[in-house]
Amino acid sequence: MFETLSAEIIAIGSELLAPDRSDTNSLWLTEKLNSIGIEVKLKTIVGDDDERLEEAIRDASRRSKVVITTGGLGPTEDDITRKVAARALGRRLLLDETILADLRQRFLAFGHVMPERNSRQAMVIEDAEVLANPNGSAPGIFIEHDGVAIILLPGPPREMRPMFEDHVLPRLVVRAGAVKVVRRMLRVAGLGESALDEKIAPIYTQYENPQTTILFNQTEVEIHLTARGRSEEEAEALLDRLSEQLEERLGDAVFSFAGEKMEEVVGLKLSVGRYTLAVAESCTGGLISQRLTDVAGSSKYFVEGVVAYSNETKTRALGVKTALLREHGAVSKEVAEAMAEGVRKRAKTDFGLSITGIAGPDGGSDEKPVGLVYIALADDAHTKSRKLMLPGDRQLIRWRASQAALDLLRRRLI
Amino acid sequence: MFETLSAEIIAIGSELLAPDRSDTNSLWLTEKLNSIGIEVKLKTIVGDDDERLEEAIRDASRRSKVVITTGGLGPTEDDITRKVAARALGRRLLLDETILADLRQRFLAFGHVMPERNSRQAMVIEDAEVLANPNGSAPGIFIEHDGVAIILLPGPPREMRPMFEDHVLPRLVVRAGAVKVVRRMLRVAGLGESALDEKIAPIYTQYENPQTTILFNQTEVEIHLTARGRSEEEAEALLDRLSEQLEERLGDAVFSFAGEKMEEVVGLKLSVGRYTLAVAESCTGGLISQRLTDVAGSSKYFVEGVVAYSNETKTRALGVKTALLREHGAVSKEVAEAMAEGVRKRAKTDFGLSITGIAGPDGGSDEKPVGLVYIALADDAHTKSRKLMLPGDRQLIRWRASQAALDLLRRRLI
Repeated sequence: MFETLSAEIIAIGSELLAPDRSDTNSLWLTEKLNSIGIEVKLKTIVGDDDERLEEAIRDASRRSKVVITTGGLGPTEDDITRKVAARALGRRLLLDETILADLRQRFLAFGHVMPERNSRQAMVIEDAEVLANPNGSAPGIFIEHDGVAIILLPGPPREMRPMFEDHVLPRLVVRAGAVKVVRRMLRVAGLGESALDEKIAPIYTQYENPQTTILFNQTEVEIHLTARGRSEEEAEALLDRLSEQLEERLGDAVFSFAGEKMEEVVGLKLSVGRYTLAVAESCTGGLISQRLTDVAGSSKYFVEGVVAYSNETKTRALGVKTALLREHGAVSKEVAEAMAEGVRKRAKTDFGLSITGIAGPDGGSDEKPVGLVYIALADDAHTKSRKLMLPGDRQLIRWRASQAALDLLRRRLI
Repeated sequence: MFETLSAEIIAIGSELLAPDRSDTNSLWLTEKLNSIGIEVKLKTIVGDDDERLEEAIRDASRRSKVVITTGGLGPTEDDITRKVAARALGRRLLLDETILADLRQRFLAFGHVMPERNSRQAMVIEDAEVLANPNGSAPGIFIEHDGVAIILLPGPPREMRPMFEDHVLPRLVVRAGAVKVVRRMLRVAGLGESALDEKIAPIYTQYENPQTTILFNQTEVEIHLTARGRSEEEAEALLDRLSEQLEERLGDAVFSFAGEKMEEVVGLKLSVGRYTLAVAESCTGGLISQRLTDVAGSSKYFVEGVVAYSNETKTRALGVKTALLREHGAVSKEVAEAMAEGVRKRAKTDFGLSITGIAGPDGGSDEKPVGLVYIALADDAHTKSRKLMLPGDRQLIRWRASQAALDLLRRRLI
């Protein structure tokens, strides 16, 4: 049915050959390439090794129509990609004065003189296009070579990703031609992977296109849908049809329809309703506040966060009565509710959200084991709380607790 | 000096080229190979693709002394490793009657008749050794080819790992001789990649062994050192010698010698000194508190965190005078210092740490641009502050600000 273009990815850097490092750039790139109908056929991971890299670039550009390298564009001795790629393709390296001037300016803006070694980042390959890098000092390079697109990108994801999306993807879309691959991701809260699959398998197994994958992505359950069509509209229509059925089946459990994060969804709802929020955290130690304020513009609704680790702080800062702490313990429904009410009162906000729990690895008991968490939400009329038993290690329990608390607020705002 | 044997790993299977799967076998294999002094020089991930796999095996066995493939030894159509490896090496495939009989027996033991397709797992490469697989139906293959060891192993880790340890490792130890490879990582605060390289290149370039790589890993600069020796002790001694010179040159800038995170280093110092800490954050929105409390046992020293986003909260919760806010603005040295003193006083801790700044993307001005951050640290005698101009996007500015604040505390605790 739908013919695809072949790509290879070459990840460069000796550190990527260590036993504790894997190349994650290629996963992100694969997803992006797939989305425009380009298939990754081979990946190479090579060190700062002239000969092997040269051979890898030469072989890849002989076998495949798109070759992307990541890494090795930095200012140090062991950054060899520019030089080796030029040699592999039989082209010269030239100094680009505009880039050099930009680099000097970039350093000056932060009050530094450019170290001389950075000038190698201004070397470009003959007859190649330079790709701007707004987040770093290494520009990328786009080379047309005998009908093959060879693209050199820097290794740090926050530099590589926007460069790929802004400069490379549009060029590749044109090459990829007629087959459009469209993806959509639904994020789900409050359901495990198997429970989710049981609910929706009867629906998605009816379709070969879109293809459905359920993925437990570190901490959240995601439903990935991939559709192919002769046009984007055709593929999108296929996605719409399946997605609607899934959403109907899952109801409120789906919180994100285009990859938005929970804190973005909650932030948008607070913003639209002109509500304000204050947060009191114990076991999550600031994670909810940090997630909420990760969203630009969050100062409109986020007023205050309190990380109250000790009982004394819970009493002093949040007005939780010592009798309550003594009677029920810090990890209890009663204290969670008092924390939510206390922080709301103190910060004079519409909502007060709180968490108290045991994230481990220590501090658990038979009665109150590691993973026991209470979350509470106070507004002007009610205080609602939930008891959770969360699996996982410290990081995962903390993350899941913050997610459940944000989800409690999200459902209140629907 | 120490010749190390070079190895390449080829991971085979189209599923390994999906955007959500990475090849973890190679990480495990790398660790095992490194431990006997064999260095992995290149990794290839290739689909069930005859031509590309043939080329990968042929190239690898020309370039390197040890070639390990994982995957593609199963019973289905798309398991092509045996067939393609034979072709790449110019050898024949032969049916091994002993393996075939074993396979039939294996199925019978579970009450099944062997499906005919499984007989392809009894095909072996001419003049190769067969490696038993106690946990699965695919035997491995060990081939000596012009002084190169080529080893075909199955993909599932629970089959591959014991086969490698029982049959492959002992054979490779003999080839590798006595060379051991040891690694170390130093983490650095307060220096960029180029500035760091300029400082230490005159030292590390004197040594070929250990080998030094400088890496900008998302947000931190890391120095990776790899040494080889006839024994682990010898290699460690080489690392010690270089590491000491680097540490002397860099002084306090090195905060981690064995991969510890900044929050772990600071936590340990607080813990050892029996100090307590409270944190007041504006632009980092809880990130410092969250990082500090990510460390198990942090309740011993972390008493309270306040996320004071609004001026009103800074005044009410931290006692920052409104006159000060009016005169200098929320993002100022004076307010940072008042926040640190305020949170320390309020929580009755030894130290108060604070941040105020502009993380962007909005809220900047000519006078106070995005990236301007003040951090302050108060103890019983002094309050110290620093002004920072941080590059990057919102997430990176927040992270760098939190890192600089933690580093201010770390240096105070030395």
